Amino acid sequence: MDNAAFRRYGHAFVDWLADYFENIEKLPVKSKTLPGDLLSRLPASAPTDGESMDEIFKDFRELIMPGISHWQHPAWFAYFPANNSPPSVLAEMLTAGLGSQCMSWQTSPAATELEERVMDWLRQMIGLPPEFSGVIQDTASTASLCALLSAREYATGFTANQKGTNEPLVVYASTEAHSSIEKGVKIAGLGKDNLRLIQTRDDFSMCPESLAKAIEEDLGSGLKPACVVATLGTTSSMAMDPVEAVADICKQYGLWLHVDAAFAGTAAVDPNHRWFMKGTENCDSFVFNPHKWMLTNFDCSAYFVRDPEILLRTLGMQPEYLKTAADTEVKNYRDWGIQLGRRFRALKLWFVVRSYGTGGIRKMVNRHITMAKDFSARVDSDKCFELMAPRQLSLVCFRYKPGDTDEEGLNQINQQLMERVNATGEVFLTHTVLRGKYTLRLSVGQRTTSARHIQQAWQLIKEASQQITV
Amino acid sequence: MDNAAFRRYGHAFVDWLADYFENIEKLPVKSKTLPGDLLSRLPASAPTDGESMDEIFKDFRELIMPGISHWQHPAWFAYFPANNSPPSVLAEMLTAGLGSQCMSWQTSPAATELEERVMDWLRQMIGLPPEFSGVIQDTASTASLCALLSAREYATGFTANQKGTNEPLVVYASTEAHSSIEKGVKIAGLGKDNLRLIQTRDDFSMCPESLAKAIEEDLGSGLKPACVVATLGTTSSMAMDPVEAVADICKQYGLWLHVDAAFAGTAAVDPNHRWFMKGTENCDSFVFNPHKWMLTNFDCSAYFVRDPEILLRTLGMQPEYLKTAADTEVKNYRDWGIQLGRRFRALKLWFVVRSYGTGGIRKMVNRHITMAKDFSARVDSDKCFELMAPRQLSLVCFRYKPGDTDEEGLNQINQQLMERVNATGEVFLTHTVLRGKYTLRLSVGQRTTSARHIQQAWQLIKEASQQITV
Repeated sequence: MDNAAFRRYGHAFVDWLADYFENIEKLPVKSKTLPGDLLSRLPASAPTDGESMDEIFKDFRELIMPGISHWQHPAWFAYFPANNSPPSVLAEMLTAGLGSQCMSWQTSPAATELEERVMDWLRQMIGLPPEFSGVIQDTASTASLCALLSAREYATGFTANQKGTNEPLVVYASTEAHSSIEKGVKIAGLGKDNLRLIQTRDDFSMCPESLAKAIEEDLGSGLKPACVVATLGTTSSMAMDPVEAVADICKQYGLWLHVDAAFAGTAAVDPNHRWFMKGTENCDSFVFNPHKWMLTNFDCSAYFVRDPEILLRTLGMQPEYLKTAADTEVKNYRDWGIQLGRRFRALKLWFVVRSYGTGGIRKMVNRHITMAKDFSARVDSDKCFELMAPRQLSLVCFRYKPGDTDEEGLNQINQQLMERVNATGEVFLTHTVLRGKYTLRLSVGQRTTSARHIQQAWQLIKEASQQITV
Repeated sequence: MDNAAFRRYGHAFVDWLADYFENIEKLPVKSKTLPGDLLSRLPASAPTDGESMDEIFKDFRELIMPGISHWQHPAWFAYFPANNSPPSVLAEMLTAGLGSQCMSWQTSPAATELEERVMDWLRQMIGLPPEFSGVIQDTASTASLCALLSAREYATGFTANQKGTNEPLVVYASTEAHSSIEKGVKIAGLGKDNLRLIQTRDDFSMCPESLAKAIEEDLGSGLKPACVVATLGTTSSMAMDPVEAVADICKQYGLWLHVDAAFAGTAAVDPNHRWFMKGTENCDSFVFNPHKWMLTNFDCSAYFVRDPEILLRTLGMQPEYLKTAADTEVKNYRDWGIQLGRRFRALKLWFVVRSYGTGGIRKMVNRHITMAKDFSARVDSDKCFELMAPRQLSLVCFRYKPGDTDEEGLNQINQQLMERVNATGEVFLTHTVLRGKYTLRLSVGQRTTSARHIQQAWQLIKEASQQITV
């Protein structure tokens, strides 16, 4: 494809995207495709001769699009949001075109320095103290793995990298912590047997007394407590672990404290919602995902560490072919993470923060929280429904509870309810299980979601519930 | 920013990108910026109020662009290429706009099925047998980490995930293996002490006899050999480990064989260059990076495994909030890698392979190899220069060797030569050290590189060499 063709198709794609954004509400939020539908329509082998972009683009629209679930749809209430925005999409176009590889300062000086600056903007925006340094990771999974590895090296006097993970180091997180923590513990060679899932309080937040007790027990058994992962905004119910109390315990026992605020972190941009950050000034590492709730295209995860030296000693590598004359003066972010190769992710973050300003981001966060409050009030005032956890920020956990159905029946009914609602294509929400109870989650966070969509979601849920035979 | 503004700026950005591609040769390949140049020009804090896209775009052009090293410049001969192409950039626009999160089939059914199909295309294209299954990873660093973890679990009967890495497992790779292998060994908790760097033969490829001897020694010491990483196309000199011989040794001792063909893999698309793949049919895992030499935007790394069950048992996680009704019928690629979140990377791969066809990719590979051969011949026929390793595929390792300068002097001279050549902004190449000798690398692989650029690079190197006082 020559440059003139790129220009022509580029314009066509921009128009297609703008039309897509304009008409997205006409599409089913959750794709109605069935397993294998697309697979069976794709040729078994690659073509030998090149095909025209007209043909490829046609297939994109006719074959791929029906199999897309629309994460940017205003009625996307499933999982957590991964909201993007026009400035972010525009920045991604430039990132793709430049095709920069941002592993070292030398390979893309502006990318490194923009990342350093924009990450310091983010640090200030969420209220972390100046001693924290930031780096962009792809996902919170990876950032939390970096934290666990740093904790491992710190606890072993930086010997595990050299000798392997020989002594049993113990990691603590609540029963509601994200699956990536268990996965990280396994990857780091620490072993799931050495992960203590601490029980939670009524609001699904970590119980600090249980944490202290577990640490004491492990010390008593001759094990070596190494790290606590506190969650701000658990995936199931947006519970907030009491970081201040947890930090005190970590200080007392000399443990690494990692805070996983993957979703909730963005809310800290508004000082009125920043209460949950209390104590994070004492953590060792902190992650939140601008790619969830901060209008920035996936992937973009913001990882902050108190002492970059520990991260560098844990993950730094200096092979000859990567050495440069500038190494003593600059940051080489390849040593701040798992991967060597790095995309130019700072650009979209810079575009987004400048386009919206901190004021614009606060406004969006408040808008979403207000809508969640409204939905929560509807649930709370309906005698056939109940809230399953305190509404926190933009997530509402609830279930349908007709008459005197038993727990098993309620679990079945609510699963049916969710499937029925999602099948309309008008709305998409997902579930979790809280203390054995099947729970529906309505997570508000798309850029274009408005009160009308919340009202419609509630109406659909009500209607569907009335069609279910108990 | 509203949709009309997105449309307007989208068109402006497409035109800017097309102009950039057209005029890229007027820009210095390697940015002439100095450490701190950009940082000092960026405000210390984020704005409260949103700024206009005109202003942001202006700053992008005036502040960011001078700090960009142009990976897509036809005179980029540094490191390895990370070439992109118009169809890939177009696909990235769509990926960004859709903003899909591709962790599970349900979250993006078409993305999952397209990935399955396109990865099978790639498998056929490079000649791996049908029993291999593919998944897209971000980088070879991550793919190789998945391989090391799979080997760890396999060698411990799937107990390391549960109990931690308790027994000393040994990993083998050549002294020329990529730094990501040592990094992966550390991350997986295996310990650098348990990584044996096997000596290489004259051509910098792993010596299989030394490998067998090292395994025997470790067995004799009561250690547990677990994994061999063979490299096809080492970073320093594109050496090809003898996979067939290595695979025989792995079979004999029951070791996991991972093949890192991050760069060279693309050459296997042409059966005439596929000789180095011999023996890969017996490996357990294999990685190559379409984002290096296959016209596909970074990041896109193709990881193939013989037995996906091992990968799934190593990395699978089933938290309640991710369970879906389709789970028994579909692939959920989140369980095939480190990260939970996943971008829609299959789209660009599909666009690229269809646009160029396997024939087009072969043609490009051959064009690059021919140019490297040409450069190699120039070096070889000049009595003031010498080749430092056999020219393999598209990489030429060489140095300037005037008169009877001693080795230390040659190291200094060649570093000066590289810096002088790069300072012209006309060309960018990087170095390595081979057996203690400072070596310049000319790596050919940009889509738009032509014979003229090779000729110019040689001329610049010759001229610069004549300006150096020995």
